[in-house]
Amino acid sequence: MDFNIIRIARTVINVKDLERSRAFYVDALGFIETERDDEHLYLRGLEEHTHHSLVLKKADTLGVHALGYKVEKDEQLEALEAFFKQQGLPTKWMPQGTQRALGRSLRVHDVSGMPLEFFAEMEGVERMLQRYDLYRGARIQRIDHVNCAVADVEKAYDFYRKSLGFRCSEYTANDDDRVWAAWLHRKQGVHDQAFMNGEGPHLHHIGFWLPDPLAIIHCCDVLASLGYGDCIERGPGRHGLSNAFFLYLRDPDGYRIELYNGDYLTSDPDFKPIRWDLDDPRRQTFWGHKAPESWFNETMPFLHIETGEVIPTAEPTLKKIKPEFVL
Amino acid sequence: MDFNIIRIARTVINVKDLERSRAFYVDALGFIETERDDEHLYLRGLEEHTHHSLVLKKADTLGVHALGYKVEKDEQLEALEAFFKQQGLPTKWMPQGTQRALGRSLRVHDVSGMPLEFFAEMEGVERMLQRYDLYRGARIQRIDHVNCAVADVEKAYDFYRKSLGFRCSEYTANDDDRVWAAWLHRKQGVHDQAFMNGEGPHLHHIGFWLPDPLAIIHCCDVLASLGYGDCIERGPGRHGLSNAFFLYLRDPDGYRIELYNGDYLTSDPDFKPIRWDLDDPRRQTFWGHKAPESWFNETMPFLHIETGEVIPTAEPTLKKIKPEFVL
Amino acid sequence: MDFNIIRIARTVINVKDLERSRAFYVDALGFIETERDDEHLYLRGLEEHTHHSLVLKKADTLGVHALGYKVEKDEQLEALEAFFKQQGLPTKWMPQGTQRALGRSLRVHDVSGMPLEFFAEMEGVERMLQRYDLYRGARIQRIDHVNCAVADVEKAYDFYRKSLGFRCSEYTANDDDRVWAAWLHRKQGVHDQAFMNGEGPHLHHIGFWLPDPLAIIHCCDVLASLGYGDCIERGPGRHGLSNAFFLYLRDPDGYRIELYNGDYLTSDPDFKPIRWDLDDPRRQTFWGHKAPESWFNETMPFLHIETGEVIPTAEPTLKKIKPEFVL
Amino acid sequence: MDFNIIRIARTVINVKDLERSRAFYVDALGFIETERDDEHLYLRGLEEHTHHSLVLKKADTLGVHALGYKVEKDEQLEALEAFFKQQGLPTKWMPQGTQRALGRSLRVHDVSGMPLEFFAEMEGVERMLQRYDLYRGARIQRIDHVNCAVADVEKAYDFYRKSLGFRCSEYTANDDDRVWAAWLHRKQGVHDQAFMNGEGPHLHHIGFWLPDPLAIIHCCDVLASLGYGDCIERGPGRHGLSNAFFLYLRDPDGYRIELYNGDYLTSDPDFKPIRWDLDDPRRQTFWGHKAPESWFNETMPFLHIETGEVIPTAEPTLKKIKPEFVL
Repeated sequence: MDFNIIRIARTVINVKDLERSRAFYVDALGFIETERDDEHLYLRGLEEHTHHSLVLKKADTLGVHALGYKVEKDEQLEALEAFFKQQGLPTKWMPQGTQRALGRSLRVHDVSGMPLEFFAEMEGVERMLQRYDLYRGARIQRIDHVNCAVADVEKAYDFYRKSLGFRCSEYTANDDDRVWAAWLHRKQGVHDQAFMNGEGPHLHHIGFWLPDPLAIIHCCDVLASLGYGDCIERGPGRHGLSNAFFLYLRDPDGYRIELYNGDYLTSDPDFKPIRWDLDDPRRQTFWGHKAPESWFNETMPFLHIETGEVIPTAEPTLKKIKPEFVL
Repeated sequence: MDFNIIRIARTVINVKDLERSRAFYVDALGFIETERDDEHLYLRGLEEHTHHSLVLKKADTLGVHALGYKVEKDEQLEALEAFFKQQGLPTKWMPQGTQRALGRSLRVHDVSGMPLEFFAEMEGVERMLQRYDLYRGARIQRIDHVNCAVADVEKAYDFYRKSLGFRCSEYTANDDDRVWAAWLHRKQGVHDQAFMNGEGPHLHHIGFWLPDPLAIIHCCDVLASLGYGDCIERGPGRHGLSNAFFLYLRDPDGYRIELYNGDYLTSDPDFKPIRWDLDDPRRQTFWGHKAPESWFNETMPFLHIETGEVIPTAEPTLKKIKPEFVL
Repeated sequence: MDFNIIRIARTVINVKDLERSRAFYVDALGFIETERDDEHLYLRGLEEHTHHSLVLKKADTLGVHALGYKVEKDEQLEALEAFFKQQGLPTKWMPQGTQRALGRSLRVHDVSGMPLEFFAEMEGVERMLQRYDLYRGARIQRIDHVNCAVADVEKAYDFYRKSLGFRCSEYTANDDDRVWAAWLHRKQGVHDQAFMNGEGPHLHHIGFWLPDPLAIIHCCDVLASLGYGDCIERGPGRHGLSNAFFLYLRDPDGYRIELYNGDYLTSDPDFKPIRWDLDDPRRQTFWGHKAPESWFNETMPFLHIETGEVIPTAEPTLKKIKPEFVL
Repeated sequence: MDFNIIRIARTVINVKDLERSRAFYVDALGFIETERDDEHLYLRGLEEHTHHSLVLKKADTLGVHALGYKVEKDEQLEALEAFFKQQGLPTKWMPQGTQRALGRSLRVHDVSGMPLEFFAEMEGVERMLQRYDLYRGARIQRIDHVNCAVADVEKAYDFYRKSLGFRCSEYTANDDDRVWAAWLHRKQGVHDQAFMNGEGPHLHHIGFWLPDPLAIIHCCDVLASLGYGDCIERGPGRHGLSNAFFLYLRDPDGYRIELYNGDYLTSDPDFKPIRWDLDDPRRQTFWGHKAPESWFNETMPFLHIETGEVIPTAEPTLKKIKPEFVL
């Protein structure tokens, strides 16, 4: 591989009402607002030294733009372009200046049809890690991962591992040893990108890292104080998979946000991916209430890199079930 | 009143298998085992300087013995006897020596038929508050309260306030201003004794005080590690009523235990009881998953102070509903 | 006794610059500002349902006004007046309307010459306990205690216990069994009022209750972020005495504030006061850095209830030493 | 570079009394004891899936054996050997079977004379991350870093960055822009290896990662309960550098252990190292008590890879000072 993907670095999502979203993300969850204009709100976590990790874009139609991955060097974007073209997959350059605070980027669709974006450069900003006086709500530290439903998990799993250089930390498989869900990483946590079996490609959730477990409890308290109690969809609880202490929220447009703390270091190349059996109840949810129906059934569409239209989806290749351990 | 009730001080419950209960209460929850014999297990919290606050008694039939209240002075027991006799309520002396570590006690049935026990003296033991090396599981500090279902809450509410000197911190009332549930205290927390509308008298749960919110999270983790994940019935969550951060567990015999932290000081005589409307959804659960059916429907019987037989119950006088805020 | 003292309820201190104090107490520590005028700032904790527990009064001279104790009923103030007069101690009525939000109060000097104030009524305000969106800094919950240096601790100890009805939770004594320091309470915590041997009467510190240990850590972080790092005088650490997790701060005028969490319930009348030997090093500080010299030597003067002048002090009757366990 | 160093993976230290050390590391701090024999105790953290990260070796003389770094592949060890030989630095092979649970390793001395060891393979063991019932004391998760005093920090800094592929996250420099201390990493935290100006090469401390800040507080409580209160040398406090919440302990032989939580992700190649001025007091300790003299003056010797003798040291090239921010 002539490119080195560093980590998931940002997501861009359409929202219907910027003020309403700002109240949720900034006032309640504690994101730092880096910048805003009439059409966008640029948000980051307290630890982040780059301009944003979440962009809210005003639009009439909901949907998720290309998921943004940071690569090591700008010149690696050509290698990525060559690779995706060779695979017969769509690509599109976004020149510097097209997107606020970003250097040039390469947009593509992956084997599942999911839109991605690669870039090396984003404008730097002051890191607020030690501005504890600004800590609010969930004390969001940084973007951690994205989790997507795709029709053929094994195909995505193979592509990300073999072609893009991701490593697998944990996965679930059915009785036929078919991969039902997978947690894949480039940075040294449990995942940057997770896939699970479902109609897709769809975004299931965006995960953000918190500094400690009490930040989740405090966030619940703040959400309830501000009238957002109903936004809590699942948790708090402990994942068996990843070991993280978690909370799932639904934002005012229905996007699912995971607050996440406490996975482990995945630096070692000889760490063997942990397999979880789909039908082994003993190894499922570590503890916590069952996930509600909505958690399994409601996901958000992706947008095409050329047309901006919602991408058509395919039915999953494996049976849909509701394993409690799914992140 | 010629007596001064200090606080709820102990409960005695029948269990079927002492070893099984010991594994749950001592190894998983972190109770200190003060003493045991073939028929009893005497447990206390880390802060408690008295012999026990929970007695597990081996028996074939499940049920709850008289709830134990500490009074200020031994000679006040005669005043209590006189009062209950005057009310036409059953009383029974348990001489010193009858019950391990306890001075003489007076057993009675209250206006709801619920068995109580009053005593002034219990043997002292070493307080383990600063033996942090012994902290395990939930780091149980001390008994906090009991919550009971009774057929006529208003009758119990009046009796405990007017005749026994309890104060009310919070209560729920229906549209006709009938008291549906009440939180009553003698010590300066939110409650020693709560009542709620239901078939009764039945014990709903025993609440224990924890040192901080993370003790609840750690307890969930430990329970899951030891295979007790299914014992978690409700929570963690935050009560609107009392403001406590809570977790409800079911022990191996089905008794419900609440782990509880974070209510407030109720020292002030001019603090006005907080009223919560039964049908005001905005003021119900502060945050957390809905309580399951079992939480509303499953309670434990009391035993008669003379016969030891399960006490017959009556149907509730008010409509049974499921307000989420019930503690 | 014909009066019933409920708890320490407020302190009033002179400060030189209200804005400077507001930045410290409200912006950094997280007190709620109930009200202000040109001369006063009225502050309360998140749990408090009364107008204030701390009054900052603009003045050129620093000093502490009468320590405010809440009593059960207004009519008990006459009994207190009679008692203090009988003891030959100064008294002074402050009619309702004299002090913002307070009913009438009785000011006195106690046997150490320390100014006290008794009152039954204070205006009620909204309790912010469940306004978690307002939680800042140390998340101050409520006033907990005051600690004062007096020349003759045993005299104060006897007076508060025998004449005012306080109970002792813990104390230190020297080889001759003379009381060197004492922790006395009316409410059911370790103390409302502590005394220790020293030039006095002087105020050593005012203690405020926090919801959990992490609130202390977060407060340190916020103080450092805002440039108040040097205000941390001692801690965080764990007291042997009281078992509290603590932090001592010095406010912009030099008043010492203790942030305090984790003592224990003192409801039981048969709880025996814990004795700590002055010269037993094994039982001193539970853990934490040694207290600096300033902690032992710097205290604040009291003001006379009639003249408003600084009260003259006396040298301590026992040897001055530096036991690490002193709170 | 034809090798890829993954992370600091283990340290081996001589101790005088294995039982005494076991009581400290296992019973008090909560390390998992993987295995022991008459001469060794093999310890690991709860998250670690490899045999050990700390070896205590019984010996009459105290000292630190080669610091163990994990490399990506076994065949890279030859490339490392070639490199060190080319630099004229001593090397020595330790064949598989020589050291318990380890594959073959290459021992070397670096430019400061400090002994290192490279290996790719260590026996796997059960990861206890979700065995919360075994969590004790500090809940040690994994080895995080080593910090060493060397005579010429800039020389070491250049060698580790340019020749071994480390990246610098933060550093301190004096007025002449000479590097006084540096934090260098291979894994994506703030450091695997720190250097600071001082007589050396000496080991200053070994740092272990904890799951959350309360684990440090609980560890202090447990240490005090077990009589180890005097082992706390510095902290708890917050580092300006690295942002970690920390505690420094001295083990029964005097080795310094840091308990460490809360640094940040250093995945981004364009993250600019943070410079701290040696003489800028505003940017020093974030908060916490001053480090005692012992913290600056007491360090532990390294042992030679061939002779096992204590390595002679050199005086530092820069002025010795006591910047409070030093980790």
